[in-house]
Amino acid sequence: MSANENARVAPLVGQHVQRGEDLRFATGQGRFVADHVSTTTLHAVFLRATQAAGQIRSIDTLAARDCPGVLAVLTGTDLAGTLAPIGALHEPNEAFVDAFSFQMADIAIPCLVTDRVHYVGEPVAVVVAESRAMAEDAAELIDVDYTPGTAVTTPQAALEPAAPRVHEHLPDNIAASLRGGFGDVPAASKGAAHRVTGRFRMGRHSGVPLECRGVVASWDPARGRVDVRTSTQVPHFVRTAICASTGWSVSEVHVSTPDVGGGFGPKANVYAEEVVIAYLARLLGREVAWLEDRAEHFVASAQGRDQHLDAELAVDSTGHIVSWSVEFLADVGAGSLWVAGITANTALHSVGAYRVPHFQVVGTAVYTNKTIVAQYRGAGRPEACFALERCLDMAAEAAGISRLEIRERNLLRAEELPKRLPLPYRDGVPITYDGADFRRCLRACEQRLPDDLLDTLRARYPGMYLGSGVATYVEATGRGPYESATVRLLADGTFEVGVGSACAGQSHETTFAQIAADALGVPMSAVRVRTGDTDAVADGIGSFASRSAVVGGSAVHRVCSQLRARARELVARCLGIEQDSEHEPTWSEVGRLLAPGGELAEQAPLSVTGTFEPPTVTWTMGAHLAVVGVAPETGIARVLHYVVAHEGGVEINPTVVLGQIRGGVAQGIGGILLEEFDYADDGQPATATFAEYLLPGSCDVPPVDVVHLPGPAQLNPIGVKGVGESGTIAVYAAVASAIEDALSCPAGTLTSTPVLPSTMLDIAESSVDASV
Amino acid sequence: MSANENARVAPLVGQHVQRGEDLRFATGQGRFVADHVSTTTLHAVFLRATQAAGQIRSIDTLAARDCPGVLAVLTGTDLAGTLAPIGALHEPNEAFVDAFSFQMADIAIPCLVTDRVHYVGEPVAVVVAESRAMAEDAAELIDVDYTPGTAVTTPQAALEPAAPRVHEHLPDNIAASLRGGFGDVPAASKGAAHRVTGRFRMGRHSGVPLECRGVVASWDPARGRVDVRTSTQVPHFVRTAICASTGWSVSEVHVSTPDVGGGFGPKANVYAEEVVIAYLARLLGREVAWLEDRAEHFVASAQGRDQHLDAELAVDSTGHIVSWSVEFLADVGAGSLWVAGITANTALHSVGAYRVPHFQVVGTAVYTNKTIVAQYRGAGRPEACFALERCLDMAAEAAGISRLEIRERNLLRAEELPKRLPLPYRDGVPITYDGADFRRCLRACEQRLPDDLLDTLRARYPGMYLGSGVATYVEATGRGPYESATVRLLADGTFEVGVGSACAGQSHETTFAQIAADALGVPMSAVRVRTGDTDAVADGIGSFASRSAVVGGSAVHRVCSQLRARARELVARCLGIEQDSEHEPTWSEVGRLLAPGGELAEQAPLSVTGTFEPPTVTWTMGAHLAVVGVAPETGIARVLHYVVAHEGGVEINPTVVLGQIRGGVAQGIGGILLEEFDYADDGQPATATFAEYLLPGSCDVPPVDVVHLPGPAQLNPIGVKGVGESGTIAVYAAVASAIEDALSCPAGTLTSTPVLPSTMLDIAESSVDASV
Repeated sequence: MSANENARVAPLVGQHVQRGEDLRFATGQGRFVADHVSTTTLHAVFLRATQAAGQIRSIDTLAARDCPGVLAVLTGTDLAGTLAPIGALHEPNEAFVDAFSFQMADIAIPCLVTDRVHYVGEPVAVVVAESRAMAEDAAELIDVDYTPGTAVTTPQAALEPAAPRVHEHLPDNIAASLRGGFGDVPAASKGAAHRVTGRFRMGRHSGVPLECRGVVASWDPARGRVDVRTSTQVPHFVRTAICASTGWSVSEVHVSTPDVGGGFGPKANVYAEEVVIAYLARLLGREVAWLEDRAEHFVASAQGRDQHLDAELAVDSTGHIVSWSVEFLADVGAGSLWVAGITANTALHSVGAYRVPHFQVVGTAVYTNKTIVAQYRGAGRPEACFALERCLDMAAEAAGISRLEIRERNLLRAEELPKRLPLPYRDGVPITYDGADFRRCLRACEQRLPDDLLDTLRARYPGMYLGSGVATYVEATGRGPYESATVRLLADGTFEVGVGSACAGQSHETTFAQIAADALGVPMSAVRVRTGDTDAVADGIGSFASRSAVVGGSAVHRVCSQLRARARELVARCLGIEQDSEHEPTWSEVGRLLAPGGELAEQAPLSVTGTFEPPTVTWTMGAHLAVVGVAPETGIARVLHYVVAHEGGVEINPTVVLGQIRGGVAQGIGGILLEEFDYADDGQPATATFAEYLLPGSCDVPPVDVVHLPGPAQLNPIGVKGVGESGTIAVYAAVASAIEDALSCPAGTLTSTPVLPSTMLDIAESSVDASV
Repeated sequence: MSANENARVAPLVGQHVQRGEDLRFATGQGRFVADHVSTTTLHAVFLRATQAAGQIRSIDTLAARDCPGVLAVLTGTDLAGTLAPIGALHEPNEAFVDAFSFQMADIAIPCLVTDRVHYVGEPVAVVVAESRAMAEDAAELIDVDYTPGTAVTTPQAALEPAAPRVHEHLPDNIAASLRGGFGDVPAASKGAAHRVTGRFRMGRHSGVPLECRGVVASWDPARGRVDVRTSTQVPHFVRTAICASTGWSVSEVHVSTPDVGGGFGPKANVYAEEVVIAYLARLLGREVAWLEDRAEHFVASAQGRDQHLDAELAVDSTGHIVSWSVEFLADVGAGSLWVAGITANTALHSVGAYRVPHFQVVGTAVYTNKTIVAQYRGAGRPEACFALERCLDMAAEAAGISRLEIRERNLLRAEELPKRLPLPYRDGVPITYDGADFRRCLRACEQRLPDDLLDTLRARYPGMYLGSGVATYVEATGRGPYESATVRLLADGTFEVGVGSACAGQSHETTFAQIAADALGVPMSAVRVRTGDTDAVADGIGSFASRSAVVGGSAVHRVCSQLRARARELVARCLGIEQDSEHEPTWSEVGRLLAPGGELAEQAPLSVTGTFEPPTVTWTMGAHLAVVGVAPETGIARVLHYVVAHEGGVEINPTVVLGQIRGGVAQGIGGILLEEFDYADDGQPATATFAEYLLPGSCDVPPVDVVHLPGPAQLNPIGVKGVGESGTIAVYAAVASAIEDALSCPAGTLTSTPVLPSTMLDIAESSVDASV
C-alpha cells in the first residue's frame, strides 16, 4: 500500500487524467440498454393516452390479443390489484416544511392508468410480443373509448376556481406550495429609491439525451430475482419503487445500469415502464425489453422548467438591494415524484449571490394536463436566476449604473463569507454559502474577455448586432442524505470500487478511480469502478443534484482510506511491528498474507463498505458572461463567446470539470434560444419531433472559456463542490442580457424563453440602434 | 437470528427437503450455457485432428478465411506466441511422492496443436463466424496436410522400447508411475495356502452428460474483463488456466457456470476450448460461443477408466488374506491434467475395506494416441475395486468358502476401526479409515434382500439364469486443500451464500441452503445459494472427488455460524447487554440496526467469507449386492435388483443422497454391461455415436435399495462424508460376480469390462448349468 511499490508520488486528483471510458465509447464498444436485447427477448410496447384529459370508458384488447406473436396485453385494470402506484420516495424535512409552510399534494403515479388520463403520452396499456413490430401492430388494434375531458394547459387556468381537476381525488390543482423569506419586504420596499417589477416565463424544455430511456428485464430462476437493466440515474430508487409496487423484497430485484447515453435529470425520475417491465419479465419468465423511441420520449419522458415568475426588486439610489420578492407558478404537468424538489429549488436559490436584506418567496406548483415535469439540469435554479438577474439589469438602468456595477455593489464580498441566511435548506440545516469571494468571479469573467474581442467579432460578422451580458448564480451541491461505496482488494492486487452514484456519462469510472487510487496509494490502473448496480453496493441514492463527486466521491475516499488503514493495522499486527515503523508493506505483500494459506487468510477478502453523510450542502457560485450577435435580417441570435468563472472546490479532473461546464452552457443556450415543448389548448403536444423541437448543434455553441477559482469546501474530506449544473443555471439570464445589449433595447424587454428570431425582429424594428 | 422469529425448531439438515431447483428444471426454466447465446453471438467451431498421430506439414486456411461471415481462422501457430499451453494446476504432495517413488511426466496441453497431433479430436484450428453453419462450412475448407505417424493404442504397445512416442519431447510414453506398499508380499505369499492371480481390464468409458460442454465468453469493456460462461465443475480452475495461458490477471477474467446438465468428472477438467474462446472474445470484442456437439463430445471430452491390472491375492487355508499385490497400467490417452490423480486413486484404494497384512502396488500411467483420460465418477477406484473383489471371489472358490464368507472374514471389524494404514494419502497424511464397522454394511445388504426375491424373479423371468454377487469398496472423500464460502445478510433479512463448489446437478442450492439455514437459525426460504461463480467467492476449488458436501458444506456452515456469532456480538455491544442474556435479537432487528442511519450502520454489510480446510480425507465404505438375470437366448444380462448399504456421515438431505447413490449405480451398470469407447489400431475412434456407445436406459436400471448406516465423521463440523461416487465404485465387481453366479461358471471367468452378450453366450455354451 505504498508508493515504493508503485513508484507514484504525485496525487491523481487534480490531474487532467484521460477518461478511462473514452476508449470503449470511441471504438463503439459502449453497451447501452438496447445492446442487451437478443432474439429471444420479448418486446413491450406501451399504448399511450391520445387525450390529455378525460375518462376511459372502455378498452378493447381482443383484437390485439389475437395478433400473431402476442404474449400479453395488459391494461391498468388488469394490473390494478397487482402493481401499486409509484409513491413518493422521501418525506420532506420538518424544519424546511415549517419555515416555508410547505405543503404537498399526495399523488402516486399509476403504472398504467385505470380510468382517467392526465396527459397525452401517459401509459394506458402494454403489449408484449415476440418482436417489436408485432407488439406495435397489436397495440394499434387496441381500441380505447374516451369520454373527452377539458384539459388545463397553463397554471393560471388550472388555478381558476372552476378549473377541471387534473387529479380527480385532489381538491384543486395545487401540487405544492410554499411561502417564506426574511426581513419585511413590504415595509422595506416602500421607501426604496427604485422598484422594478417583471413578469417572467421560462419555457418548458428538458434534457434530450442521445439515448432515450429503455428497460430490459429478465427473470433469473436460479437466483429467484428479476434482473432489470435500465437507462437510469437512480438504480437504487428504481429497485425501491419496483419492490414497493410489486411487494417483492429487495433481494428479488437486481437493478443495474449499462452504459447510459445521457441523463441530465429526466432519467433521475422513476418511471412506470421500469416497474411494468420488471413485473412482466417475472410474470412471463422471459426477458422483456422496452426501448423508448424518440416520438415516445417527447411525450413520455419527464420535461423541465415551465415556470412563471412575478418579481419585484427594490434598490436604493446607489443601486444596493433593499428587498427582493418573487412569486412563482411552476407548471409541473401531471406531476412527478420530484415536484417538491423543483419548487424548493427555485425558492432556495432565489436570493442568489447577493446581499439581500429583505426577501420573500411564494411558490406554487400546479398540475396541468401536460407531460410530467421532473428535474432537468438546474432543476428550478435557472428560473430563480433568470428572474433575479433580469431585475438587476432593470434596476441598474433605473439607478443609472452599469449592469456590472450593480452586481459589483451587491455581490457578497470575501469578508461577508461564509454567509448564513435565516432560512433552512431542504435538509433543515440553515443555509450557509460556504464561499470565498463572490465578486472575484464576476471580475474574473471581465478580465478574461480579450480586449479586442468585440473588434474581432465586428470584423468577422459585419452588420451583426453585438452585445454582452452577465449573470451570476449560486447552487447548493452535494445533497445528502448519504452515498454508499465499497472497495475490495482482489487477488491480483487490484481493487474493485463500487459506488451508489450511477453514471450517465459523467466520467465516474475515471474520477472515482482517481480518488480511490490516491486514497489507496496505487496507480489508477489498479482500480476498477462499478457504478449503477444494486449488486455493487446494497444501498445508494444516485446521481442528480450535482451530488456525485461530493457525496459519492467522498464515500469512495472514505472506504478506500479505511481499507488502507485496516490493511496497515492487520499487517502490523501480523508481523508484530509498530504501525508507524519504517516498513510499510506493499499491497502485493498484503495480498500474499491474505491469500488462502497466508497468515491473514482469515481476514480475506479485505473489503470496506460505508457511507458518507454530508452535514449539509456545499454551495458553488459563479458568473457567466455571454457575447451575442444578432443578425438583423433574420433575427437569429448566436452566442459568439462565453466565459464562466466559478468558485468550485478541488477539481478531481479539470478536463471533466471543463466538460461539465461546457456541456451545461450548451444546454443553457438551447433553453434560451431554441428549445420549447409546446402544447395546444387541448393539451395535444405540438412539439413531437426534432423538426419542431430544436437542439443546439455544435455551431450554436461558442468557445467556452472556464475560470476555476478554488473556494473552501470543508464539508467533505476531498474538498470538492458539485459542478454538474453550474454551466446551465446562469446562461438564460446572461444571454438575454447580451441580446438586449445587442439590440439596445430597454432592460427587461426580454421576459420569456426561448427568445426566438421573431421576437428579436420585432424588437429590432421598434428600437434598435445599430451601433453597439 | 432466533427461532422465536421464524418459529422453526427442527433442523433442516437430515430432512427430505424438496429440491429448490426442481421447479425451474421441471418447468423448462433451467438456463444452460447454450441458453446464453444470442443472435449477435459469434460462433466458434474447432477443426479437430483426423489423425491420431503424425506431423502437421501445413495448414491452408485461405479458403476458410474467405468464406462469408468468417471473422477469424486461427491455428496453433497463430496462437503459439499468445496462448501458453495449459499446465498442471497442482504439485503432488512431497510425502506422497516419497512414499510411492511417484514420478510424473511434464506435459502441458497446447490450446491448439502446432505441429504434432496426439489423438483424433485434438483441436487443430478454430473458426469464428457469424453463425455456426458459416463456421462449420468454413472449417471444412481448411486443408491440413499430415505426415502420418504410427499410433500406439494400448499401454502395452506404448511401453515397447521401439514404440513411437506420443509426446515427442518426453523420453518414453510413461505419464506417471508409482510403487509402494507395506509388509513383504513376496515372502508372505510364498507360504500362503492359496494364491489366485488375475489379469483384468476395465474398458474405456466415461460420463456422457445430457448437456455437452460449451463456452460463451464476452468482453466487458466497462469492467475490463472477459465474462466466461462455461459448463464446468471447476470455474476457479478455469479462471486460473485462462490467466496462466493468456497472462491476464484474475480481475480480468470472470468465470461462471450457468445451469450445468451433468458433470460426472469429465467437466472437472480444464479444456483448451475454454481458454481459446475467452481469448477470442477479448480479441474480437464480441461474444463468442462454442457449443460442443455430441460427435465432438465422443472424441474431445475426457474419457475414463481404461486400465489393465495384474493381481495376486494370497489367502490362508481359512480364507484370510495373507498378501495382496496389484500392478496396473492406466491408459491415459494423450494425457490430461488429472493423470496423477487417477493413478494415485487406484493405488490408494487398492487395499479396500479389508485386513491386508502385506500389500504392494505398482502403477504406470501410459500415454497412447487416444482421447485424453481424466477423472470419471470413481476415477481409478472402480478399477482397484474390480481387481480385488474379483480375486476375492476366486480365493473363496479356492478356499472352498462362500463369496460372502471370505468377505465376512476379512472385512475390518468395529474393534479394528478407525484403521490407520502405513501409507500416506495424496495430501501426505497417513491413511486412516475413519469408519465404524465394515462388516455391518455387508450384513445389511444380505438382510435387505427379500426372502422371496429369487422366487419372484424366477416366476417373472422364466428361463432366465439368475445370480447374485457382492462387492465392497472404500472411498476417500472430501479432499482439501480447502473450499471457500461467503454469506451476507441482505437488506430484506434474507441471506446470500456463495460457495466455491460448482453445481452440475447435485442439488447444491438445496443442500447448502439447508446447512446455511440451520447455522443461521432461519427458514430455507431466507437463504439463496450461488455456486460456480468466481464473483460469488474469490477463491475456490470446485466439485469433484466427492468433496462438495464435505468441504463446501463445511465452509458454508462455518461462515454462517460465524455470521450469526458476529451478529449476536454486535447487537449485544450495541444494546449494552450480555451476549447470553435472554434477549436474543431477531434478524429483522439486526437488519434495522445495520440499515443506513441505524446504530450499526457502520458495520454493514454484515458478511463473512472464509474457508474450510479439512485435515485430510474422510473415508466411506459400502457393500453392493447385485441380482442379475442373463437371457440364455441373447446373452443379454439385466440387473434385476440392487442393494447398496453404505457407511456415510450425516445425510444433509436423504433424498439427495438416494439420488446420488442411484445415479452412481446406473452409471456403473453402463460401465459393466454396455459402455466402451473403442479405437481401431490406427487410433481412429470406432465409437462415435450413440449407435455404438450404449448408455443404460431406465429399463436397464433396477430398483436400488439404499441402506444408510451412520459412521463417524469427525474431520468436519457437520459430520458428513461424500457420497457422489459411492454408487459407482463397486457395481462392476458386484455385477460381474452375479453374472458368474448366474452362469455357474468358475470365479474369475469375467476379467474385463464391458461384459457383452457375446461373452455371456460363449460362457453359457461352454459351462452353464441352467439351474441356479
